[in-house]
Amino acid sequence: MNINGFKASAFQAGMKYKNRLDVGLIAADGPVSAAGVYTKNLVCAAPVLWSKEKTSMGKAAAILVNAGQANACTGSEGMENARRSAAMVSQTIKCDVNHVLLCSTGVIGQQMNMTALEQAVPRLTAELAEDNLDIVARAMMTTDTVPKTSEREGLINGKPFKIAGMAKGSGMIAPNMATMLSFVLTDASISPEFLQEILSRTTETTFNTVTVDSDTSTNDTVLALASGKAGNAMLTSSGDQGAEEFENAFHAVMYDLAKMIARDGEGATKLVHVKVDGGVDDAQARLAAMAVANSPLVKTAIFGEDANWGRIMMALGKSGASFDQEKVNVFVDDVALVKDGMDAGVEDQATSVMKKKEFDISINLCAGDGRATVMTCDLSMDYIKINADYRS
Amino acid sequence: MNINGFKASAFQAGMKYKNRLDVGLIAADGPVSAAGVYTKNLVCAAPVLWSKEKTSMGKAAAILVNAGQANACTGSEGMENARRSAAMVSQTIKCDVNHVLLCSTGVIGQQMNMTALEQAVPRLTAELAEDNLDIVARAMMTTDTVPKTSEREGLINGKPFKIAGMAKGSGMIAPNMATMLSFVLTDASISPEFLQEILSRTTETTFNTVTVDSDTSTNDTVLALASGKAGNAMLTSSGDQGAEEFENAFHAVMYDLAKMIARDGEGATKLVHVKVDGGVDDAQARLAAMAVANSPLVKTAIFGEDANWGRIMMALGKSGASFDQEKVNVFVDDVALVKDGMDAGVEDQATSVMKKKEFDISINLCAGDGRATVMTCDLSMDYIKINADYRS
Repeated sequence: MNINGFKASAFQAGMKYKNRLDVGLIAADGPVSAAGVYTKNLVCAAPVLWSKEKTSMGKAAAILVNAGQANACTGSEGMENARRSAAMVSQTIKCDVNHVLLCSTGVIGQQMNMTALEQAVPRLTAELAEDNLDIVARAMMTTDTVPKTSEREGLINGKPFKIAGMAKGSGMIAPNMATMLSFVLTDASISPEFLQEILSRTTETTFNTVTVDSDTSTNDTVLALASGKAGNAMLTSSGDQGAEEFENAFHAVMYDLAKMIARDGEGATKLVHVKVDGGVDDAQARLAAMAVANSPLVKTAIFGEDANWGRIMMALGKSGASFDQEKVNVFVDDVALVKDGMDAGVEDQATSVMKKKEFDISINLCAGDGRATVMTCDLSMDYIKINADYRS
Repeated sequence: MNINGFKASAFQAGMKYKNRLDVGLIAADGPVSAAGVYTKNLVCAAPVLWSKEKTSMGKAAAILVNAGQANACTGSEGMENARRSAAMVSQTIKCDVNHVLLCSTGVIGQQMNMTALEQAVPRLTAELAEDNLDIVARAMMTTDTVPKTSEREGLINGKPFKIAGMAKGSGMIAPNMATMLSFVLTDASISPEFLQEILSRTTETTFNTVTVDSDTSTNDTVLALASGKAGNAMLTSSGDQGAEEFENAFHAVMYDLAKMIARDGEGATKLVHVKVDGGVDDAQARLAAMAVANSPLVKTAIFGEDANWGRIMMALGKSGASFDQEKVNVFVDDVALVKDGMDAGVEDQATSVMKKKEFDISINLCAGDGRATVMTCDLSMDYIKINADYRS
């Protein structure tokens, strides 16, 4: 992947992992429009505090990312390590320290391996190159089984633009935020304020609809940078010509990445879209969808390919959403599994659908016009293996 | 176990399970004081609707319980089957149909096997005997690995009384209610209103502090019956002589049963008490404790005996409770694992504690005087096995 105006590099720093890429750098030619969305967890990591402050000013020139250490729950030493990391990058690539964004992912509570990072940053800078975004996507992986990238292109008022995104994350994932780390780069010219507006809006309908295990990370960050090299007249609001096409492409990249995260949930074997219609309002529909998507009993039934719809009814009932249980209909894909809150007698057909790698659970609560869709995965024995042994 | 004034029996009806006890009957000599606490799940089973109405009148003479079929999401046919079940019992034991309480546990959505039940009820009635409560505790098991019973005795104003309790439940367990089924019987004389008051109050500090998997059942029920055979002056309020001793004994039985349920959580290998002090108030302390107790990442770390305290910080941060992350202290038993929100450097000692079958995770949020304690278990590979295969 390549976006005009950005170079990238990655390196085996050995900060925690050995013999694999674990740090990455993305650098623009100079300060460009920047935006960020961050975890809502009250306990948040030093790089989150750092980057949040920087993107609030709307400009950035670089992103330094590492995997293996989260720099969360590390106190003032962690904050100082974040500042030093940014300073190292600003010195080697020659930019304002306030234009360096930081992202970390990994184990909470360890101080960063600064010796490794000090050796890495000059190498990362020396190796910055175009067409290198894919290796950053690899360097930011932890328990991810595949790197996650997506691209789109389009025209703004006749000028071609590109958007490239990358993400990592497979556990400790739930709104809000529903990813660990994601970077979206574009060559379009767009104001920082409008970039932030689009990033915030599309996060709601993409990353924030993914739930793997209901746990929300201390480090979740989505960053967007726009180099402006496409040469279009700067987009500043939704009314601008080409703004809608840009936002659609931006949304498509974010949605691709969100779906890849759900599919790569720790130990996941299936991707399931939980769609709720007929909630009293959208908020209640979302409560219901999240209760189904997060229920360990529903998720293990999905893993077992068992059309055990009683667990879906149980999850709806505990969700806090209002409805009449005798009006509820549940479908898996187009098979009506539950009719008027009772068995529709087609469990064999439903079981066939559940053998698929990806399917929908669609629920009509018949209580109003509220709608919500969330993505989830199954809960498998491998989730336990991965998380019982994650640090060993 | 035996309580004066009650007889019991159990039978292999084959309603769903084969070759094991699956129905049980408890009968008093006539109508006695009765109280009930029920699931708060909006989707609730026919026997819950039935029994709730009956205990609200304060009198009961019998409890019929079955395992394997929940009679939930069964519509008007399910409600009619509940009524017929109660009628069968009332005819064979000769009591008012409104004095028969019903409890079911098992798979949601199937109509009850009424043929099996029709054959069972006369046999259950014929075999009613004293000293038979333990076999009812066995008959109500589903995925439970052990029957759960507890007894206490004491004096009310010089008169000896006994309390015996039984419970079943190991998955789909979370407040409110934190059990599937529990029956507490006593020979004390107590008014229905005061029995209900004690049952409701002690449920809050016992069953409602247990969480196995955050899922709340459609069938959860706790029933209390008091035969009055102890011959004490009827207890009617907390001020009565002996009332405190009675309530303490009642609480002890309920707490024992709650702890047995947490310990027997599906696939559980460990019982953990999550104790939060220093919340802004008790409600916030409970939010924090429940977030830790329900976090799949915390629970898998407990299974892995991994003192991965970052996950505890993450769970506290997402809980919605207010606190300053740099003031948080976390202990496992008496080992200070986290000090001022950071690593206390004693992970080896903490790991030793986590090898125990039962330990405390104590958290001080240093944000106020709020306190809460909940019980939970670890999340193991066996949880997935049990729940992916439960119906097959």
